[in-house]
Amino acid sequence: MSALNDRVKTSSGFYVTQEAPIQTDNAIPTPSVPAPDILRCAYMELVVTDLAASREFYVDVLGLYVTEEDDAAIYLRSTEEFIHHNLVLRQGPIAAVAAFSYRVRSPEELDVAVAFYSELGCRVERRSEGFTKGIGDSVRVEDPLGFPYEFFYQTEHVERLSWRYDLHTPGELVRLDHFNQVTPDVPRAVKFMQDLGFRVTEDIQDDEGTVYAAWMRRKPTVHDTAMTGGDGPRMHHVAFATHEKHNILAICDKLGALRRSDAIERGPGRHGVSNAFYLYLRDPDGHRVEIYTQDYYTGDPDNPVVTWDVHDNQRRDWWGNPVVPSWYTEASLVLDLDGNPKPVVARTDDSELEVTIGADGFSYTREGDEEKGFKLGNTL
Amino acid sequence: MSALNDRVKTSSGFYVTQEAPIQTDNAIPTPSVPAPDILRCAYMELVVTDLAASREFYVDVLGLYVTEEDDAAIYLRSTEEFIHHNLVLRQGPIAAVAAFSYRVRSPEELDVAVAFYSELGCRVERRSEGFTKGIGDSVRVEDPLGFPYEFFYQTEHVERLSWRYDLHTPGELVRLDHFNQVTPDVPRAVKFMQDLGFRVTEDIQDDEGTVYAAWMRRKPTVHDTAMTGGDGPRMHHVAFATHEKHNILAICDKLGALRRSDAIERGPGRHGVSNAFYLYLRDPDGHRVEIYTQDYYTGDPDNPVVTWDVHDNQRRDWWGNPVVPSWYTEASLVLDLDGNPKPVVARTDDSELEVTIGADGFSYTREGDEEKGFKLGNTL
Amino acid sequence: MSALNDRVKTSSGFYVTQEAPIQTDNAIPTPSVPAPDILRCAYMELVVTDLAASREFYVDVLGLYVTEEDDAAIYLRSTEEFIHHNLVLRQGPIAAVAAFSYRVRSPEELDVAVAFYSELGCRVERRSEGFTKGIGDSVRVEDPLGFPYEFFYQTEHVERLSWRYDLHTPGELVRLDHFNQVTPDVPRAVKFMQDLGFRVTEDIQDDEGTVYAAWMRRKPTVHDTAMTGGDGPRMHHVAFATHEKHNILAICDKLGALRRSDAIERGPGRHGVSNAFYLYLRDPDGHRVEIYTQDYYTGDPDNPVVTWDVHDNQRRDWWGNPVVPSWYTEASLVLDLDGNPKPVVARTDDSELEVTIGADGFSYTREGDEEKGFKLGNTL
Amino acid sequence: MSALNDRVKTSSGFYVTQEAPIQTDNAIPTPSVPAPDILRCAYMELVVTDLAASREFYVDVLGLYVTEEDDAAIYLRSTEEFIHHNLVLRQGPIAAVAAFSYRVRSPEELDVAVAFYSELGCRVERRSEGFTKGIGDSVRVEDPLGFPYEFFYQTEHVERLSWRYDLHTPGELVRLDHFNQVTPDVPRAVKFMQDLGFRVTEDIQDDEGTVYAAWMRRKPTVHDTAMTGGDGPRMHHVAFATHEKHNILAICDKLGALRRSDAIERGPGRHGVSNAFYLYLRDPDGHRVEIYTQDYYTGDPDNPVVTWDVHDNQRRDWWGNPVVPSWYTEASLVLDLDGNPKPVVARTDDSELEVTIGADGFSYTREGDEEKGFKLGNTL
Repeated sequence: MSALNDRVKTSSGFYVTQEAPIQTDNAIPTPSVPAPDILRCAYMELVVTDLAASREFYVDVLGLYVTEEDDAAIYLRSTEEFIHHNLVLRQGPIAAVAAFSYRVRSPEELDVAVAFYSELGCRVERRSEGFTKGIGDSVRVEDPLGFPYEFFYQTEHVERLSWRYDLHTPGELVRLDHFNQVTPDVPRAVKFMQDLGFRVTEDIQDDEGTVYAAWMRRKPTVHDTAMTGGDGPRMHHVAFATHEKHNILAICDKLGALRRSDAIERGPGRHGVSNAFYLYLRDPDGHRVEIYTQDYYTGDPDNPVVTWDVHDNQRRDWWGNPVVPSWYTEASLVLDLDGNPKPVVARTDDSELEVTIGADGFSYTREGDEEKGFKLGNTL
Repeated sequence: MSALNDRVKTSSGFYVTQEAPIQTDNAIPTPSVPAPDILRCAYMELVVTDLAASREFYVDVLGLYVTEEDDAAIYLRSTEEFIHHNLVLRQGPIAAVAAFSYRVRSPEELDVAVAFYSELGCRVERRSEGFTKGIGDSVRVEDPLGFPYEFFYQTEHVERLSWRYDLHTPGELVRLDHFNQVTPDVPRAVKFMQDLGFRVTEDIQDDEGTVYAAWMRRKPTVHDTAMTGGDGPRMHHVAFATHEKHNILAICDKLGALRRSDAIERGPGRHGVSNAFYLYLRDPDGHRVEIYTQDYYTGDPDNPVVTWDVHDNQRRDWWGNPVVPSWYTEASLVLDLDGNPKPVVARTDDSELEVTIGADGFSYTREGDEEKGFKLGNTL
Repeated sequence: MSALNDRVKTSSGFYVTQEAPIQTDNAIPTPSVPAPDILRCAYMELVVTDLAASREFYVDVLGLYVTEEDDAAIYLRSTEEFIHHNLVLRQGPIAAVAAFSYRVRSPEELDVAVAFYSELGCRVERRSEGFTKGIGDSVRVEDPLGFPYEFFYQTEHVERLSWRYDLHTPGELVRLDHFNQVTPDVPRAVKFMQDLGFRVTEDIQDDEGTVYAAWMRRKPTVHDTAMTGGDGPRMHHVAFATHEKHNILAICDKLGALRRSDAIERGPGRHGVSNAFYLYLRDPDGHRVEIYTQDYYTGDPDNPVVTWDVHDNQRRDWWGNPVVPSWYTEASLVLDLDGNPKPVVARTDDSELEVTIGADGFSYTREGDEEKGFKLGNTL
Repeated sequence: MSALNDRVKTSSGFYVTQEAPIQTDNAIPTPSVPAPDILRCAYMELVVTDLAASREFYVDVLGLYVTEEDDAAIYLRSTEEFIHHNLVLRQGPIAAVAAFSYRVRSPEELDVAVAFYSELGCRVERRSEGFTKGIGDSVRVEDPLGFPYEFFYQTEHVERLSWRYDLHTPGELVRLDHFNQVTPDVPRAVKFMQDLGFRVTEDIQDDEGTVYAAWMRRKPTVHDTAMTGGDGPRMHHVAFATHEKHNILAICDKLGALRRSDAIERGPGRHGVSNAFYLYLRDPDGHRVEIYTQDYYTGDPDNPVVTWDVHDNQRRDWWGNPVVPSWYTEASLVLDLDGNPKPVVARTDDSELEVTIGADGFSYTREGDEEKGFKLGNTL
């Protein structure tokens, strides 16, 4: 649900408010203890079913750098990273996400995290030697939304490769930008993430107050993670940033040259939300990877919150290009701390796909349009 | 029909041959006199039904430069052009194309053109004062394929604005690149254009020898015009070139900002054919405009001819993104020399849309695929 | 002075350390009270001698957006800014800097700032109505280094123009990135800025421990300000960021078209320090403006500090292109709180210009080179 | 000498004329027989003194593709080339140019070339098996200006790699663009090249009619070769084109990463002449290589000829950045048909370096300036 009264319409067609206009009547209780001080999303641990195929995708095609590898796992980082890795590929029986891992400001924040999640009754596990190579003392939890979250500070430092232009490729991935999670009840998830210290930067709603998705940040970009409404808990995508837009186009061109263009699921395009230039790929297991560049600074406490109308056909693609249905419906399983897939709970709120497409939905290019400019029909 | 025997498959999945592998059993007779020596496609004359709306699109949105204008017509050019115009917008009752105009190498070539088309029995009209402002002695014909073609040499010179970076926009259109025509019988059209002195650079065929489209050039780029199989004679699009790919993305971004994203029909994307980066727009009358950059040099007489399999899903978009049906089916009427629309004749050869999409068609990403990677289904 | 023992040489030729290896024996005492919590550099107030000429430069040439203006002052912002301004141009008798203004995290931080600077014995002035339009309660100080610093939280919000691509220019400036200050004693200045809560990200030193410049940040980029060794206090430059490198090139092209290429002082080029792509301009009063893009994330507490050897010819320009002498020697005066220019004190430490260029200096492309690749000589 | 009466000043500060305004009183007689029909500059044969070092530069650093190689020579091509090579590196005792090679329109044009140069009394050698691998029947001459020119039609076809994005690098060189020759008497050289069928597109002159350089083309770009005034015959540079400007910047960045930034002699920058974005490198033997992109179409017979004032400080660099003296004074020797270096004859006309720089020269940013904006002085 959402309070829409104070929003101001911008000249670009969306709204701004001072506070995230999201409310829930199904809140997870706010802990009495403080939340850990999170710096940023730091790495994702992915379980893949064919490690060699995944290595080819992430290393040979996307050009991520191998910090370390063995028969069971590969530790990858992006160009400017100085911590051990941004992505772990681990061979396993079922494609899934083992951890959404965040870096905290100091070693002491791990105690804070333990207290925070313990009060919430979550399963919490701590390993002083870390859960993955290159990472020290770490806490993993099954959070109240069902996601496997990790927090750590200690890590091996590795060389930042920003100046190593001799190694760079045309589609160079310079940084891990964000995660994106699928959850049935977005307002409930947002409220919990706010308790964890995240701030909402943008969201998609309708006039009835249904919230379809919300973006939240710790570092001053549009997000460290987002909550996408759908059957969950599942992982929607992990995103890496490039410096320029042509880098993203180069990835598409290379996939074409390799006759792997079917790895391109959606885009490239310009997001309405975040204003970033984007591309969505699917890895050999179907895990979705976004390539992303040029959102905006959000670090001020009064950073205006942007709200998009779900029927605005430019919200997800500023150029009005259609969102493929698989992008709405498919996502990766997440694992519990024993490595078993979490059961998926169905969304009961309206589906963004259904309210915007087809007989039961509508979208507009200009407010007041009677479906003019709604381009999906044209592609049938 | 097409001779497929001598073609060589490249490592990129298409074929090359030394001669355009297109044959017709329905040829227009080759004139006994020489064809005029054509330099390049020079301008298109478009009839538009709302001159103010068209001006807004081509001048305010796309940034073409006004050389001259009055109540009835606007004369526009691209950045590096030194002849009077590349596009004429003329107010009229029915949206259509009044002329595909080519520049010839000398004033004397107009006599050659008159003789060439007269022998073919075509209607030919010559005006020493030109048919449009800024252009001198000109010949207009209704060619054997039904298109209104113009030839001229004399023109007023205007200032090339390449160095006037103070006037340039993020989506700067630097040059007229090519025309694209819709015609029912592509081999017949190609044979005629070869008689007119054009050389085939690329085409799309199937193993049965059906030709779906062909690209032909005078200047050493991939084309000055192309023949697209379909109900015709109609005009498929007129294309302007930018310097870089981000210029094309900037046009999309601007259309979004203006809440005109529904002017984007297809793309942006990378063509398989031509290897160019592209975008298709529709103007206020539905005339299709392509923005295009970075094809390749074709000026050697033995330039390899590229042949694409119609079922190769990367032929029209190297990234395998679907072609919207409107792009196949919609096109602009063309006018006869009296200004009346030419009747449209239906294509009887197979339709590219039907052989590649849906129950009766198929496409592949990798040869031998059983429709894996055929992405249109995913967008329904 | 500098502790060089723990540094590690990278494969790119510079060094990294865990702590800023800068020490001073001439420290300003550390206040007993906390420093204000600074978010970011927010705006600079420039005194200009010809407001119309400055407007033409910053608005017509560089494309900054006018939030407000009157006969005495112009308030400008960059594309994605939502606070009132990033630059104030104020008509005055002497070209100078009236304020380096920083935004703090909350209104309460102004009391903290007053206490911090008061204990240091600095002149402190507070105005609840602000010193410039659009800014509320503010504190201005003459800091111990002689610079006019401002702190504020309250500000009018304005529309972020990131989505207004219809307004963008080829050289779009999207964000204020940083300041750069000239001061005689860099280690002393760095120590004071660390007390103010800044963290060093990079510096330039020699093996004798002389520090030539240091870069310091609050927001997680390479800097919010830098200290450049030289006669001071003076302002070296103010920097705006673009999204891509071609945007910077477009500014150069436009200056050429306007026959104002003499406004280009240095660049474009790639910095060694910061890894950013850069350009330095001089405004009509000689105030230096940098255009800058694509440095790296520095927000982790253990972000590796990069140290460059002053004799490394790629430290200031990664391509080894020479730094023009004016860039080292010229800078803008700064004003005290009465509006009078601060006296300039001469640097007594070695000059970077002299130790790297000419008979008394040297530079290398590859360590151990005997001046091979030192390119300035070639330009004489 | 030059006829300046009919020139028209453009809004960009240079002049246009209809005919190349260059005259000579020292002409090489025009042959009575026709000139060969030249398509384009096709390849250069370079003698290098350390084949391994040259291979590292052209293949590992610049990314040219090896078509063939053995112990004595390497045959390289650019991305979109379909003929055997664009550059031959041949091991030899003295760094020099063995051939400027042009492709002609048909095999028969070789007879034409033999007759043309024979009438001029030039040494002419023909080899049906070609002078280099991959090239068939060829004619080599010592032309009247002292340069070793080659003409050929027959060549092995190789695969065009434009679609092979999996092989492309960030600094991809897509095409051979042009040669540049140093000759003492530019008007004499231009007149001869016009007899050979070249058309002048741009030149640099002064008001006294001294011609400092001229650009000439066969293919419709600004040039296939240029004549630069200086001691000659020598080779000034060979130029390859990229698609975009960032590709050129990527080459600079990579050279920095390899600690080879001293290979960058001049640039990157924007040319006034040609309007192209450029960079000049020096290979391990000092042979100069230009990287170049985005000039303009020149294929119409009445293409306006652009004339620049030698004192216009934006003629060689549109941003007014200084030209390093080595760029004016250093060049490669050329070989006669026996492989011996041609003696170098001194230029007696004024030197562009001297009339524009220092005590005896001057340059302006705005016509009428008294050396304002002349930036070289600032770099001393």
